[in-house]
Amino acid sequence: MDESKSVEIENFPDSERKAVYRAIYERRDIRHFRTDPIPDDVLARIIQAAHHGPSVGFMQPWDFILIKNPQIREQAKALFERERQAASCFYDEPRRSQYLSLKLEGIMEAPVSVCVTCDYTRADEVLGRNAIPETDVYSTCCAIQNLWLAARCEGIGVGWVSILRPRQLRNILGIPAHVLPVAYLCLGYPTQFYEQPMLASAGWRERQPVDPLIHLDGWSGEPGSGWDNFLDALGNATPSKTEPI
Amino acid sequence: MDESKSVEIENFPDSERKAVYRAIYERRDIRHFRTDPIPDDVLARIIQAAHHGPSVGFMQPWDFILIKNPQIREQAKALFERERQAASCFYDEPRRSQYLSLKLEGIMEAPVSVCVTCDYTRADEVLGRNAIPETDVYSTCCAIQNLWLAARCEGIGVGWVSILRPRQLRNILGIPAHVLPVAYLCLGYPTQFYEQPMLASAGWRERQPVDPLIHLDGWSGEPGSGWDNFLDALGNATPSKTEPI
Repeated sequence: MDESKSVEIENFPDSERKAVYRAIYERRDIRHFRTDPIPDDVLARIIQAAHHGPSVGFMQPWDFILIKNPQIREQAKALFERERQAASCFYDEPRRSQYLSLKLEGIMEAPVSVCVTCDYTRADEVLGRNAIPETDVYSTCCAIQNLWLAARCEGIGVGWVSILRPRQLRNILGIPAHVLPVAYLCLGYPTQFYEQPMLASAGWRERQPVDPLIHLDGWSGEPGSGWDNFLDALGNATPSKTEPI
Repeated sequence: MDESKSVEIENFPDSERKAVYRAIYERRDIRHFRTDPIPDDVLARIIQAAHHGPSVGFMQPWDFILIKNPQIREQAKALFERERQAASCFYDEPRRSQYLSLKLEGIMEAPVSVCVTCDYTRADEVLGRNAIPETDVYSTCCAIQNLWLAARCEGIGVGWVSILRPRQLRNILGIPAHVLPVAYLCLGYPTQFYEQPMLASAGWRERQPVDPLIHLDGWSGEPGSGWDNFLDALGNATPSKTEPI
């Protein structure tokens, strides 16, 4: 390794850092779409961003099923409806009525659906997957987040429909049994990017304060040295308090 | 919804889109670190980026265990060494020697380790998790990718040590039994951001061409209408071929 090249800190200029944080903080789970088509070049850049996600052992276990065909999307929508009714059985009122009143998908309005899958069998003995086999699915999820952030910066909304049962979804899309459908995503131009997550503005659930989620030098007990000012810094690092974010 | 506000396509300006794609394409899994400390404000911004990841039902199932204490990191390193030896048993030569020659972690050099966990029990009946309980882990992985990209734009390298067994890692960090350690990450300034993924430049495994991973309107069979030009667009959307990326 060339040490003379390595002493530079390769952080991004402020304007670029700000853009990355903007994508992170303005990304939303979108359920209200316009039906306008997504240009090929925009969709292509979003899919390539996913393909350049990290993966355990460089396994790249993902496939992308892109769906425009409305007959197929109608089947996914019907599967969603069954699961929505089933899910409502486990809420008491008034939560049940609130649940059923929420718009939770835009399968038919959004012009493209993307099912991102994970193929457990890709590559031989996968480097780094020996202790935790599920790291292939973890990789697939990281790729999905790449897709989500790329979409945001392209002005494309993404809505993750998380209640489609894998067995039934496999049948609808013809997915082989050894391949797991990880995410069914709706992609399209949103009517708007919500200012807050929809479940927060709908009063369903609030954002958690971050402090109780932080554990220093172990889950509990006294932290070692070097942490005196970190929690203060954390409180000042929210998007509303940070410059240039 | 205010329709007059909603007709604008809220995509980012070219310079901001370019910055987001730069983070996506220049992110690397880093194993070669300098020991320089990470400033509190930088680490705080990276953790807040993770906390603003998407989550099923706005569940926010993650916790972050931040570790500077070298005695604790030494225990993680020892656990890594056991698993590395165990993993090598499943390769034949010359793959085994190559595996053992690769530097796969920087636990002791990188000044901070971050264990990101998933608490299955957070929130009551989680909206959207009924069909696929693992969506809480999926959410945690999306948060991790936020962390990874934020770190890249701050000039901080992230290395995911994916072979630490959850049971033993729980013991080392004092993690309760109902909480899953999803990722053990090393964070620090890298000696360099590799131009290519380390496993590619080491000749371990190549990046897959994207075309065979794309399925149109179903896993197999003929696609419906609207896909005539998409595969061409995909071929032109790689970072080296796209402007302004």
